[in-house]
Amino acid sequence: MGQSGGELHHYKFEVPEIIFGRGLLGRVGSCASRLGGRRVFVVSDAGLFEAGWVDTVLGSLRDSGLEAVYYDNVSPNPRDRQVEDGAREYLRLGADVVVGLGGGSAMDAAKGIALLASNGGRVQDYEGSNRIHKPLPPLVLCPTTCGTGSDVSQFAIITDTVRHCKMTIMSRTVAPDISLTDPDTLETLPEEFVCTTAADALSHAVEAFFSIAATSLTDVHAVKAVRLLSTSLVAAVRARDAKALENLSRASLHAGMAFSNSLLGIVHALAHPIGGLYDTAHGCVNAILLPEVIRYNLPAVEDKLPELAWGLGHRTDGDPDEAASIICDAVDELLEATGAPRHLSSLGVARDSLPELAERALNDACILTSPRKAAVSDLLSILERAY
Amino acid sequence: MGQSGGELHHYKFEVPEIIFGRGLLGRVGSCASRLGGRRVFVVSDAGLFEAGWVDTVLGSLRDSGLEAVYYDNVSPNPRDRQVEDGAREYLRLGADVVVGLGGGSAMDAAKGIALLASNGGRVQDYEGSNRIHKPLPPLVLCPTTCGTGSDVSQFAIITDTVRHCKMTIMSRTVAPDISLTDPDTLETLPEEFVCTTAADALSHAVEAFFSIAATSLTDVHAVKAVRLLSTSLVAAVRARDAKALENLSRASLHAGMAFSNSLLGIVHALAHPIGGLYDTAHGCVNAILLPEVIRYNLPAVEDKLPELAWGLGHRTDGDPDEAASIICDAVDELLEATGAPRHLSSLGVARDSLPELAERALNDACILTSPRKAAVSDLLSILERAY
Repeated sequence: MGQSGGELHHYKFEVPEIIFGRGLLGRVGSCASRLGGRRVFVVSDAGLFEAGWVDTVLGSLRDSGLEAVYYDNVSPNPRDRQVEDGAREYLRLGADVVVGLGGGSAMDAAKGIALLASNGGRVQDYEGSNRIHKPLPPLVLCPTTCGTGSDVSQFAIITDTVRHCKMTIMSRTVAPDISLTDPDTLETLPEEFVCTTAADALSHAVEAFFSIAATSLTDVHAVKAVRLLSTSLVAAVRARDAKALENLSRASLHAGMAFSNSLLGIVHALAHPIGGLYDTAHGCVNAILLPEVIRYNLPAVEDKLPELAWGLGHRTDGDPDEAASIICDAVDELLEATGAPRHLSSLGVARDSLPELAERALNDACILTSPRKAAVSDLLSILERAY
Repeated sequence: MGQSGGELHHYKFEVPEIIFGRGLLGRVGSCASRLGGRRVFVVSDAGLFEAGWVDTVLGSLRDSGLEAVYYDNVSPNPRDRQVEDGAREYLRLGADVVVGLGGGSAMDAAKGIALLASNGGRVQDYEGSNRIHKPLPPLVLCPTTCGTGSDVSQFAIITDTVRHCKMTIMSRTVAPDISLTDPDTLETLPEEFVCTTAADALSHAVEAFFSIAATSLTDVHAVKAVRLLSTSLVAAVRARDAKALENLSRASLHAGMAFSNSLLGIVHALAHPIGGLYDTAHGCVNAILLPEVIRYNLPAVEDKLPELAWGLGHRTDGDPDEAASIICDAVDELLEATGAPRHLSSLGVARDSLPELAERALNDACILTSPRKAAVSDLLSILERAY
């Protein structure tokens, strides 16, 4: 890949078939049926079961004449063992399609299960880029939060319970066949999760926009995500306005389409080891790190600042300094509105682990597309400012 | 599909795998190989053969260890019989992948050949929406103009040589597996075709943006296409600047991603019968019709005008009247710069055929997504103003 004038010479852009609309979760049966399913393995969690959405999915599958089996052994930051157990269950039951319903955890677990069911072995065997060689069973992912982007992305993040780290699996084969978003599912999502997952979407959009692998195909989605978040986040959280919640779903989708193709940066390179060591909520960590990483990146992304300021609802006259200050203020304000925590210390991260976290971040794939190169000392100072 | 607040409640978005970059035509062999090809059927035309691009493709296929056969019986506005002959040839030679290299004509012919080779029968059997039931052979499309969008779209347009009309085939199955754009190919495209195909891309972007099936996923691409055209068209045409030409390729891609998912409107509903009767260059017809159709649509798209004005490089204070006048002037100026013809009379269209053309347009699928409903009398008056 070569770069010139802020845009890569060579690039790829891939997204799955996308279906979006209120009330569409009831169509998951026809999606699974169209993909050739007979016995569908549904991966979700207790919260979605209680909210009634698992029943919507199981009912839709049965209405389409399909058998449905339900697997809910999934935790936040899904673990290698949960994925291994799920794959065994999938094979034992003779299932032929996987449906993932939930936030990033349930969807990444669904990806991991589909991966091991078809390729065998352990999750660890596929850590890194392009290490999957056999096709996965058909996969339908239905996001129920407004962050993650797993429903369109070529990534799955699974926790290694022995090394206490998050493994990133990067392959076009873990993108689903169909991404189906029903924004109605946000109406039962607790406020806290609306806030932290929206912060996650914001960090995806900003990192995708600043990535050295960004292109015009990803930029348009990144900026649109920022724009939707900046206009709808407060109304969605305070008034639970249905239209505003729908806009957050849409923002999450745009951000996912951007970062899946442009990759990410330092926020995620740091968030992965923090999540691996402390099992923290991914959106919270991103919300804390984002402002410091933006400040660190500013000198390397001057050309792009006015467009991001515009996405955040502010006109500039194209002056990068003016845009930089607008962006820092607007992002702070937006994160403040989410009520997400603002300091790593409040998540239980130990100060003396910061050097190890900085070291680990240097080995995360997300660091490769950071617009400004970073040494361990740079990463450490970002962590310290965010502490 | 329902609509509210200017955005559809339910929608789909699909694009093929997209590869973009200068010099990438030499990678078409690895694309065909990845799709399982052994004997590749290359559809292109004499102009591209003379410019050397057919050799680039054939060489790349052979370098990847594939056999390559070349089919060039394709004319502008490709005909049903050329497609039927191509499909027979494909089957006779035992080919297994189709590569289309060229403008909309070569790519639509490639789609038609892939369709008949796998589904049998005549092109007429598949006219309309979703009438294709068997999967097509793997398809790689390489655009070499800056209009069309066929390389990402779910449409193929083939001329019926008996009825003298253009048949629209609409189906997800005619979207290719891979869209590969090498902007270097524009450097050998005669100026006249740069101009008319760029006008085509502009009409795609504007019609996609105004379509009643437009969504935020398509709008971002439509506006980006307009923006790239407005900043790069003059430099591309006058100075043949490589970066500007690359931006036109990119504009065409964005416009194609938009209209394939939001569909089109009156410009295309009228352009199809005109092209069917008079075998005119599609881009020229669109360039002539676009300003009049924009004027007709203005009262129905007021909410969207400021964003389109912004895409055309002009800030407004959100006033639709101000934006409308800016848009009409900017589009006129841009089309003037292309040097494309501005009157239907100059294309040899007979004045007394206008009523028949208006009648036929009413039956074109593109009329369904027009933001402002149109009776035959409305269409006729658009044609008369454009005459």
